Amino acid sequence: MSEINQQIVLNSRPDGWVTQDNFKLVEGQIPEIGEGEILVRNLYMSVDPYMRSRMNDAKSYVPPFQIGKVLEAGVVGEVVKSQNPKFKEGDVVVGMLGWENFSKSDGAGLLTVERGDVPLSYYLGVLGMPGMTAYAGLVGVANLQAGERVFVSAASGAVGSVVGQIAKIMGCEVVGCAGSDDKVDYLVNELGFDRAFNYKTCGSIAKTIAKLCPKGIDVNFENVGGEIMEAALWNMRDFGRIALCGMISDYNAKDMTPGPRGMGLIIQRRIKLQGFIVFDNPKLNMEFVQKAIGWLAEGKLKYRETVAEGLENAPSAFIGMMKGENFGKQIVKIA
Amino acid sequence: MSEINQQIVLNSRPDGWVTQDNFKLVEGQIPEIGEGEILVRNLYMSVDPYMRSRMNDAKSYVPPFQIGKVLEAGVVGEVVKSQNPKFKEGDVVVGMLGWENFSKSDGAGLLTVERGDVPLSYYLGVLGMPGMTAYAGLVGVANLQAGERVFVSAASGAVGSVVGQIAKIMGCEVVGCAGSDDKVDYLVNELGFDRAFNYKTCGSIAKTIAKLCPKGIDVNFENVGGEIMEAALWNMRDFGRIALCGMISDYNAKDMTPGPRGMGLIIQRRIKLQGFIVFDNPKLNMEFVQKAIGWLAEGKLKYRETVAEGLENAPSAFIGMMKGENFGKQIVKIA
Repeated sequence: MSEINQQIVLNSRPDGWVTQDNFKLVEGQIPEIGEGEILVRNLYMSVDPYMRSRMNDAKSYVPPFQIGKVLEAGVVGEVVKSQNPKFKEGDVVVGMLGWENFSKSDGAGLLTVERGDVPLSYYLGVLGMPGMTAYAGLVGVANLQAGERVFVSAASGAVGSVVGQIAKIMGCEVVGCAGSDDKVDYLVNELGFDRAFNYKTCGSIAKTIAKLCPKGIDVNFENVGGEIMEAALWNMRDFGRIALCGMISDYNAKDMTPGPRGMGLIIQRRIKLQGFIVFDNPKLNMEFVQKAIGWLAEGKLKYRETVAEGLENAPSAFIGMMKGENFGKQIVKIA
Repeated sequence: MSEINQQIVLNSRPDGWVTQDNFKLVEGQIPEIGEGEILVRNLYMSVDPYMRSRMNDAKSYVPPFQIGKVLEAGVVGEVVKSQNPKFKEGDVVVGMLGWENFSKSDGAGLLTVERGDVPLSYYLGVLGMPGMTAYAGLVGVANLQAGERVFVSAASGAVGSVVGQIAKIMGCEVVGCAGSDDKVDYLVNELGFDRAFNYKTCGSIAKTIAKLCPKGIDVNFENVGGEIMEAALWNMRDFGRIALCGMISDYNAKDMTPGPRGMGLIIQRRIKLQGFIVFDNPKLNMEFVQKAIGWLAEGKLKYRETVAEGLENAPSAFIGMMKGENFGKQIVKIA
């Protein structure tokens, strides 16, 4: 085992969009473990939009990243040393660890997963937090019913692609938007969305939704916020639900951006708008993973990844993902 | 019975704030009734903020008022002629009728109420739609629990004053805001609110709420929208609920106003924002009226009205109410 542990630390807090300067690659030691601890060789890590919020020094549901400290990510890794009876060498674990080759952990929050038919990186995507988020929003928050009309933004992304496919499996009509014609094609021709559009080239987003969802939207799974959320709101049906998962359009804004215009519609149409995060309902998450393994095996649930090679490319993978350059779930292969 | 039926019609659609020119007093005939119909002598009518939306030519949950046609309002009246077996002369009925001395109805949507210990005008306020709205929002939408912290805007109004008192009866901590020091004094010293403030003179509304609700807000019963709603949002606790009842601050805006800044908090704190109207849950409304009659008798629920005398004063009563000049529920005594 190499004695070098490459690590990526937060070098400075971003001012607007994240740049390479906000990261620094450093060489640390492989940590020594003590009683109750394990050493994990990190295999894959995930880069996700929520990380942008943690780069600010602001109170949130997770504490901010600290300057000079190793960044955190969802990681799949292999236990290489264990002084914790719950884990043994060779176990594959998933959880929040560092942007680094080797992480030390007391095991809290780590799940052991099987080496099976499913690639291990899937536990960072379709079988991990993004997939669980999709199910939590549709089932737990929006109480989606068969036959309803679903609109999902950032539909080709790690969360959105699962949202649309679950909704189809549940017997719903699904419309999505994405940021390129290739992605739109993928949504309709590979993932089975009923209709989709490119929000960058469609002209009025509100009018496009009105055309593609002529009866309106029962459930909006909202990943983006801003103009797309406003357009969705205007097209909601009576008693519609907006599962508010992300507002990626706001994450880089330096000042607080205003909410959608026309919020009086929330009263007139008795709309429910509810924010949620994936950790709120662990039982629902476990229910999803069981179902999703089956759906993957049956070919009902499709999944695409963009994999960046090497820890040193994690910052550019993150920056590209925030700009929408990835196709499907953005993963970094560490080892 | 006089042969004259004074009526107030919509003369023109308002452009921003409503003015006297938007109304016209006309003299019509007392309607002839046919099979299945009743003639009602209107005793009291209600003026309410929702009427402002109906003066625009826009799709909503109720159709817009029509120019040249008699306006509608919640009315308490006495049946003076009946060719409908469900009603007899002398019955007191409540429902949507016209801004006029006499209304004809087929009885649809009219409720018969008892002449009892409670003044009949109360069926337009604390025992009518405003009171039902308060209960529907707190119990049906926000699922209020004992011990929670409630913030209500427009707290001395027809809805807000009942919201605060129900929340106190349910064992909650209640903070409200209103637009004059007299109203603030009334909230705390007569209605039993824990704390209250004058939003016109308090400086930063967000900081004032933070001071008066130091642990944050579990349930915001929102009647106003705009800056007050934004300030409430910023002070919401994790898993808080915003029962969105009205956005009176927007009703006169000529362009669509943006929503609150900081909607990312809805995700971080897993807030539910839900719009509702009083007609959605008739069973809950009946439950409320039964409870409220008891609470009024026990002195637990207090109620104040501002009564304008004479149908001809209904337009000025409406205009004053929209500016916040009334104290408690604004009623017009017709006969």
